[in-house]
Amino acid sequence: MATVKTEIRSGVYYDSAKLMQLQRTLAGLPGILDAGVVMGTDSNKELLAHIGLDSAEVMASKPDELVIVVKSDDAKAATEALSKVDELLAARKGNQDQDYLPRSLESAAEMLPNASWVIISVAGRYAGGVTREALRLGKHVHLFSDNVSVEEEIELKKQARELGLLVMGPDCGTAMIGGMGLAFANKIRLGPIGIVAAAGTGLQQVACRIHQLGSGITSGIGTGGKDLSEKVGAITFLMALDVLARDPDTKVIVLTSKPPSPKVAEEVLKAARKAGKPVVVNFIARAVTTLHEGNLFFATGLDDAARLAVELANHPPKITSEADLELEKFKPEQKYLRGLFSGGTLAYEAQHILAGYLPKVWANSPINKEFKMTNALVSQEHSIIDLGEDEFTVGRLHPMMDNELRIRRLYEEAKDPEVAVIMLDVVIGYGSHPDPASEIAPAIKNCLEEAKKAGRHLELVCVVTGTDEDPQDFNSQIQQLKEAGAWVDTSNEVVVRRIGRILRGLAERGSVEAAMIGKPVDLNTLKKPMEAINVGLESFSENLKDQGAPHVQVDWKPPAGGNERLMGILERMKQKS
Amino acid sequence: MATVKTEIRSGVYYDSAKLMQLQRTLAGLPGILDAGVVMGTDSNKELLAHIGLDSAEVMASKPDELVIVVKSDDAKAATEALSKVDELLAARKGNQDQDYLPRSLESAAEMLPNASWVIISVAGRYAGGVTREALRLGKHVHLFSDNVSVEEEIELKKQARELGLLVMGPDCGTAMIGGMGLAFANKIRLGPIGIVAAAGTGLQQVACRIHQLGSGITSGIGTGGKDLSEKVGAITFLMALDVLARDPDTKVIVLTSKPPSPKVAEEVLKAARKAGKPVVVNFIARAVTTLHEGNLFFATGLDDAARLAVELANHPPKITSEADLELEKFKPEQKYLRGLFSGGTLAYEAQHILAGYLPKVWANSPINKEFKMTNALVSQEHSIIDLGEDEFTVGRLHPMMDNELRIRRLYEEAKDPEVAVIMLDVVIGYGSHPDPASEIAPAIKNCLEEAKKAGRHLELVCVVTGTDEDPQDFNSQIQQLKEAGAWVDTSNEVVVRRIGRILRGLAERGSVEAAMIGKPVDLNTLKKPMEAINVGLESFSENLKDQGAPHVQVDWKPPAGGNERLMGILERMKQKS
Repeated sequence: MATVKTEIRSGVYYDSAKLMQLQRTLAGLPGILDAGVVMGTDSNKELLAHIGLDSAEVMASKPDELVIVVKSDDAKAATEALSKVDELLAARKGNQDQDYLPRSLESAAEMLPNASWVIISVAGRYAGGVTREALRLGKHVHLFSDNVSVEEEIELKKQARELGLLVMGPDCGTAMIGGMGLAFANKIRLGPIGIVAAAGTGLQQVACRIHQLGSGITSGIGTGGKDLSEKVGAITFLMALDVLARDPDTKVIVLTSKPPSPKVAEEVLKAARKAGKPVVVNFIARAVTTLHEGNLFFATGLDDAARLAVELANHPPKITSEADLELEKFKPEQKYLRGLFSGGTLAYEAQHILAGYLPKVWANSPINKEFKMTNALVSQEHSIIDLGEDEFTVGRLHPMMDNELRIRRLYEEAKDPEVAVIMLDVVIGYGSHPDPASEIAPAIKNCLEEAKKAGRHLELVCVVTGTDEDPQDFNSQIQQLKEAGAWVDTSNEVVVRRIGRILRGLAERGSVEAAMIGKPVDLNTLKKPMEAINVGLESFSENLKDQGAPHVQVDWKPPAGGNERLMGILERMKQKS
Repeated sequence: MATVKTEIRSGVYYDSAKLMQLQRTLAGLPGILDAGVVMGTDSNKELLAHIGLDSAEVMASKPDELVIVVKSDDAKAATEALSKVDELLAARKGNQDQDYLPRSLESAAEMLPNASWVIISVAGRYAGGVTREALRLGKHVHLFSDNVSVEEEIELKKQARELGLLVMGPDCGTAMIGGMGLAFANKIRLGPIGIVAAAGTGLQQVACRIHQLGSGITSGIGTGGKDLSEKVGAITFLMALDVLARDPDTKVIVLTSKPPSPKVAEEVLKAARKAGKPVVVNFIARAVTTLHEGNLFFATGLDDAARLAVELANHPPKITSEADLELEKFKPEQKYLRGLFSGGTLAYEAQHILAGYLPKVWANSPINKEFKMTNALVSQEHSIIDLGEDEFTVGRLHPMMDNELRIRRLYEEAKDPEVAVIMLDVVIGYGSHPDPASEIAPAIKNCLEEAKKAGRHLELVCVVTGTDEDPQDFNSQIQQLKEAGAWVDTSNEVVVRRIGRILRGLAERGSVEAAMIGKPVDLNTLKKPMEAINVGLESFSENLKDQGAPHVQVDWKPPAGGNERLMGILERMKQKS
């Protein structure tokens, strides 16, 4: 029967590398079957219990207490192992390359005045304090630590934004700045692609695939996995996107994220559309409705994002401008779409596509039941009406055969001063009206003239579905509609995307360009040779050494011996000074 | 002040084309401002009120009553117009090409014994009866009528399936069979692409774009927009897919649908994977997680579906078989995945991809909160555990630095007799363990040996993320893992899709291939020259005439003068005979 011996220590701090070493050494001592060295959190205690390393003392330990537990068939061996703990903890790693380890971030900064970066990997409960200190010293922070609350994350990031500094994290595994890897990072060739990632191994996977495809990166900026949550609102992500957009060496930007808040994802895409260069987007679990729109290219996965980015870097695409939309022609109150469809599928596809441009489109036959029109006869805001729906067709011909109802509705919508765009589908072929444009085109002409008289510019767009072998004259249908003043295409998607761009443009027209909150990141700090201060896991200093980057390791201990009350007082004193 | 005069008629039946003609003629009579001719449904009455054509009599009318209403400044003109209604209704169109119109479907079938198709566009409440009669006569039905209940739709489709007959509809706008258009249909070149569509104008849009791109179709089979609802369960869609899969002239199949039930969509994809030819899928509003998997090609829209289909028809792809998975090696009780991840993003992407293969994957850090593991320490069914999550890392090194916890878990999972596949990610680079494979590979080897001793085949798959310039030897990592018996790739997606195929294969292995319900559709009926019987809108007969297809128009009137009780009795008598 095995014995489990436990020792609990409070008021001590060792980094997790030290704890792992201790655990491994204990487990390797003669007569010891297994050993555990962890902080006494609930999940750690559960883990110990799960592997048979629990005792009454273990279960009574607290989250800020260090639990040391050994298991042996021999009680004496267990006691002996525990007696060696102090000696083992005191041992210092031999391969330390710094003669002198500063005890504070401040002295480290004096030793390495050109360092723009501080890497922090101390235990989560101390990480906020160290980050604040780094920001006070004007440094970007790579915050590797996890177990930092989202409230503290927001506070740190807002403070950093005011200063034009990046807080990459908490729980940010990876960053690669100008070819230099911080924390978990691969050696990636320098090249034309910049990456912003709320996804640590996502960033590594994309960067590695880019390298494997023969290309390379300028920088890969991590943000921590929660940056695109509704609460955090992409603070670091937007700052990183902004600085890469300004970087002339970055020809293509890749954005990737763990599942983001849909709302925040849209905010990020709004910013990405203004980047002035191709942006590849891979937000995990966000539905892709198109592979390409303007300067945005949507990837279906991490692999695909890397492939696309390399392809775009090698073959820069032409990016269309929004100038062709002539938004200035519309009056300020004009903002809504009215889609009058005869084809149900075309109406569904329109809703699906417009969801990428507009927050809310009402419909009598909605994809999303929340957006069901109150009354199909009365449009509200953006409305898509399928006039082929059952409610309109009892004892009445389908709108593809009989245009009357649609034309009546067209006149009605055209009179609404808030309407900017009206869309119609014209589906020809057997069964359809023998010459729909002969009825619809004159109505369009009248509506456009009426609107003009009222001082409004109305946009009338039509999709014509048919072939050159249909009984109606396909080209004449298109011609008649164009001559009446409509914008015409044969692809529903092309037409609806044009409408989406117009309406999004009109919606954004009102909002004066939100001034960039805070201070932009100084591009130069990404460009100059990496020098960094490391607080926490010593192996991160070793990485910098291996990469030839000047660095200083801080011999960090929790302030006030880890006494939380005293730490708070010290913190407040520093902030006042 | 304008007068509105109303006439209500009950116990009469005219098709909607006739009603439209009457309305137009009335509206064009001298002194008449506007006219309405509709059945007295609530939505029609609302429409009339909306355009100022309402009266107390209109509002009191019932759904089975015909409402005739005229508006005039001159009461006498209004009365005169109404007095002409009988005369106008009696007038027969001049361009009728049949000397004799049979009164019943039965006599029509005798006149045109080779007709395999019946097109039905009578009012919804009579459509079920006519369809049943057509099925009794052994004909496929194109059911254009709308306002047919979903219950009736299911009954008709089940009956048809027993007979190996298609019921395309209700509310099916379009079908194009062997180059011949039924109801709303475009003239599309014959070619190598077959289409199944729960989407009328979707079918037209895809077929037209295929034609515009220079290719063509074998057949386009409509199913009605509700076929892929949970209730109907894709009855017609699956029959149509099956017959096109058997058609040697159809080289590529396109599937498109209005927003389908997610469950039914998966059922259809399951069948599509067995089609033995490339299948392009565009289900509106279903998220695309990959563009290509096996023989399935996912399109982002109608346009894209057409483009893809033409491309695949012109350049037939190689289709991979599932034989490489060697599913026979697994024991019957082996069915689950255990994913032990160090990278959070890789774990998220795995969940996202597997959602396309498996109904439910549990995770400690789930995309879908419903699938949150009860206890991260105890796997349940398919489980994906991110060991880098906060719960595992308080005072403990990240699993990319310290393999201990993951290896303990690996041994645990490998012992579970229900486990078929275990996945690990190995992420190298700065910061990571200096040689993770040196610890992980021996554990994998032991686990595989233990499983073998227990008579099980265990599949161990690894994704290795890194580059050839990383401090660890990238190729040696891969080599060590392979030598231990793992299946290794550098793309998370490639690895996870392989797992998806294995687990889906294992899940389907148990279920004996569900025998095709009912009778398969006779391919020959799609291949022989089109002959059809038309019941309802005469213009559909005219279409057939224009296309040179033998056809018979039925001079249909509701049985028993539209008396519903009598109709029921007649129907039952026929079914008994």
